[in-house]
Amino acid sequence: MRIQWVALDWGTTNLSAYAVGDGNQIVDRIESNMGMSQLLPGEFEPTLLAIIEPWLSNDRVTPVVACGMVGAKQGWVEAPYSEVPCLPVSPERVVSVFVKDPRLSVRIVPGVCQRQPEDVMRGEETQIAGYLAENPNFNGVFCLPGTHSKWVQVEKGEIRSFTTFMTGELFGLLANHSVLRFCTKSPSWDGAAFLGAIETAFSDPSGITAKLFSLRPQALLNGTPNEVLKARLSGLLIGAEIAAVQDMWRNRDVVIIGDRENARLYQIALEACGMCPHIYDDAQAIIQGMRSVVQISTMTTEAV
Amino acid sequence: MRIQWVALDWGTTNLSAYAVGDGNQIVDRIESNMGMSQLLPGEFEPTLLAIIEPWLSNDRVTPVVACGMVGAKQGWVEAPYSEVPCLPVSPERVVSVFVKDPRLSVRIVPGVCQRQPEDVMRGEETQIAGYLAENPNFNGVFCLPGTHSKWVQVEKGEIRSFTTFMTGELFGLLANHSVLRFCTKSPSWDGAAFLGAIETAFSDPSGITAKLFSLRPQALLNGTPNEVLKARLSGLLIGAEIAAVQDMWRNRDVVIIGDRENARLYQIALEACGMCPHIYDDAQAIIQGMRSVVQISTMTTEAV
Repeated sequence: MRIQWVALDWGTTNLSAYAVGDGNQIVDRIESNMGMSQLLPGEFEPTLLAIIEPWLSNDRVTPVVACGMVGAKQGWVEAPYSEVPCLPVSPERVVSVFVKDPRLSVRIVPGVCQRQPEDVMRGEETQIAGYLAENPNFNGVFCLPGTHSKWVQVEKGEIRSFTTFMTGELFGLLANHSVLRFCTKSPSWDGAAFLGAIETAFSDPSGITAKLFSLRPQALLNGTPNEVLKARLSGLLIGAEIAAVQDMWRNRDVVIIGDRENARLYQIALEACGMCPHIYDDAQAIIQGMRSVVQISTMTTEAV
Repeated sequence: MRIQWVALDWGTTNLSAYAVGDGNQIVDRIESNMGMSQLLPGEFEPTLLAIIEPWLSNDRVTPVVACGMVGAKQGWVEAPYSEVPCLPVSPERVVSVFVKDPRLSVRIVPGVCQRQPEDVMRGEETQIAGYLAENPNFNGVFCLPGTHSKWVQVEKGEIRSFTTFMTGELFGLLANHSVLRFCTKSPSWDGAAFLGAIETAFSDPSGITAKLFSLRPQALLNGTPNEVLKARLSGLLIGAEIAAVQDMWRNRDVVIIGDRENARLYQIALEACGMCPHIYDDAQAIIQGMRSVVQISTMTTEAV
């Protein structure tokens, strides 16, 4: 199938590249660890070419649309934030990148910022735009789990407010680098322990840093197995997160956008707290979210 | 001055050794990084000898009393926990260690555990015993800041309950290994920012992992300087800790036992939350807390 355009989810540590064919179907996908943080400005184009060269044609310009930290100040080209309340993606705010290779046209979708309280996103706005492209009348809340989980309130097509939690990053730091590393390493997972910890943290989110420490004495005093404590560590962090945004999600529709594993975990957690969340695939979200941008891009490639 | 006995605060990563003279005065002090976690059981005695040899006499047995993680299962010899409610240090529960060197008599003070919710301490019980040795009628709360900060409720000479927070460890992980490392490195400190963050977290401790993340966008959006964000990081963690133990300290006397820097920081924080804490020196606390144990020890060294 002919490749119409290329979508990039270019984050701090990883790059997901999607070859998009007719009807905005994903026809090929490449994962790379060449994240933004490892690249100097001059290295982005050669890195990208090395990854997507097989998808390019010599007789035409292939539009490439990127979102994520690639548009940060330390990235390829800065794409200045849109500020809430705003559309998740405004085609006129997308930034064109000068490239040397004539087969490429590259554009970067800007992130979204919030002034009070201070918060930022890069990449999630595109996923939200993707869901809204398919569900234009949706009013509700998005939950985007990950290294920095985000909860985003959307009304009338606009992002109104959002909150970012360090949940994923904290889980990694605590499980691998803290005193809890001795008791949370396991290939297994105890689902009941996860649910119990969700309830513990959701019903009383105060003192979360004490509840986290308590996992260690649970191992020492009770011999609680690692798969239980690993699941509890995750459940405590996610439960505290869900509790803190209750005002945002109560009596509203909730959509989870994430990779399969994270989305499923959050679905279980959210259901335990009384929500009926719907899951939307994160890759599909990126492609759909870039559709409006690509249309403009293809019209203007000669001028880029 | 003649050295009467030796006190050891032997933790996971460090060892503080105190030479104690007449009247329980500290006459010399050695700090070492030979913590429990780096030593196999057979390595404790030679490590100790290498450090305190200058303090030993050939014509007598020098009593050595140790507290801390040296008494853990992975330590030199396990000193099984006392369980709350209990005296912080019960001389009859102190464990004698078999040593080869005839100049040494070594005893380890056991830690204290709590079954519900699960918690453990090793070392802090000795410091609390030290304060109580000098203030036997004290009823109130101890705050022991550190890697794992502890709040301990004491009544009629007994530890009734306690809670451990990962405050110090989390600060280190976040400041050095998380996304916040880009915006919290500074040799300076903004006292007003610290107090502001204490108030923010104390008045609303929910969503602490979102408030922590927010430091990064504060740098990105507002250009907030690193010394402000470093102080806010500390203030958020400590403020959430203080809020979580309100039921323990409200209307009670509070004593802080810690090193000078931590004790001063917590004093400022606790005062901002309405307490009038008294500071008690941590080294003095160790020596005073071991007094009752040493007396027994010196009587029984021949039998050890």
